[in-house]
Amino acid sequence: MFERIVVGVDGSEGGLEALKLAIGLQKIHDSELLLLSVYLEHTMWEASVSYVNTELTGSTHSALQEYAREVARQCKEFAQAQGVEKVRSFYMGGGPARTIVKFCEDHDAQLIVLGSRGISASERYMLGSVSHKVTNTSTRPVLIV
Amino acid sequence: MFERIVVGVDGSEGGLEALKLAIGLQKIHDSELLLLSVYLEHTMWEASVSYVNTELTGSTHSALQEYAREVARQCKEFAQAQGVEKVRSFYMGGGPARTIVKFCEDHDAQLIVLGSRGISASERYMLGSVSHKVTNTSTRPVLIV
Repeated sequence: MFERIVVGVDGSEGGLEALKLAIGLQKIHDSELLLLSVYLEHTMWEASVSYVNTELTGSTHSALQEYAREVARQCKEFAQAQGVEKVRSFYMGGGPARTIVKFCEDHDAQLIVLGSRGISASERYMLGSVSHKVTNTSTRPVLIV
Repeated sequence: MFERIVVGVDGSEGGLEALKLAIGLQKIHDSELLLLSVYLEHTMWEASVSYVNTELTGSTHSALQEYAREVARQCKEFAQAQGVEKVRSFYMGGGPARTIVKFCEDHDAQLIVLGSRGISASERYMLGSVSHKVTNTSTRPVLIV
């Protein structure tokens, strides 16, 4: 039923809960898990119409990228430690919601699993902006944990 | 994994897609499906602070209730025709999102499945207001189809 499941991870508790549920689904549906960690990266166009410096300082960009890579790696290890063999991890730069949705389409996944709140979420909101936007724009089913 | 799955149905295409996916899950997880159709009903308090007539004309209220009951009945039959035995259907009055979330908690369900858009949705929006609100307020996982 769910051949490929995309799991959005960002190092937060919400992301971990999403991963745990996805692992449970993987075992029952024999799915392949595609773990995706997105680090914020502005396009040249976005930067040009905002006040964002087009060139993040090398160290900031590298730090974000390295963090995302580390999150992806640790999540993959976590899944493998739970006995999951069919798991791959990715880290990509871009707008998080947009990147997740496109990734799901590019990999023809049948499901996206996300935490209701991620690493940037305020305590006030039960549903983070990325999860909200992915649910709003995805043409595939989205499971909010 | 999903012992009880609540499926929100309202007679729309979105609700039917949610039901179909839930049936697929039911077969794999051997879940019990709880189909819920909510007809809009204002509480006395809500009506008192709005311009809604506290007493819907008898025929309007009955029509809404009857429609919800019919949707619930037909969805249950549809599920049974697909070979699902563990299915119950319900129809209730209230605010749809709130009612769905409370119903899930009262029945200790592990998952809510909803169409991304229901019967009231405008073509402009990819995510209906009920699905949005349920995803935002539910403490249990919500699968938006």
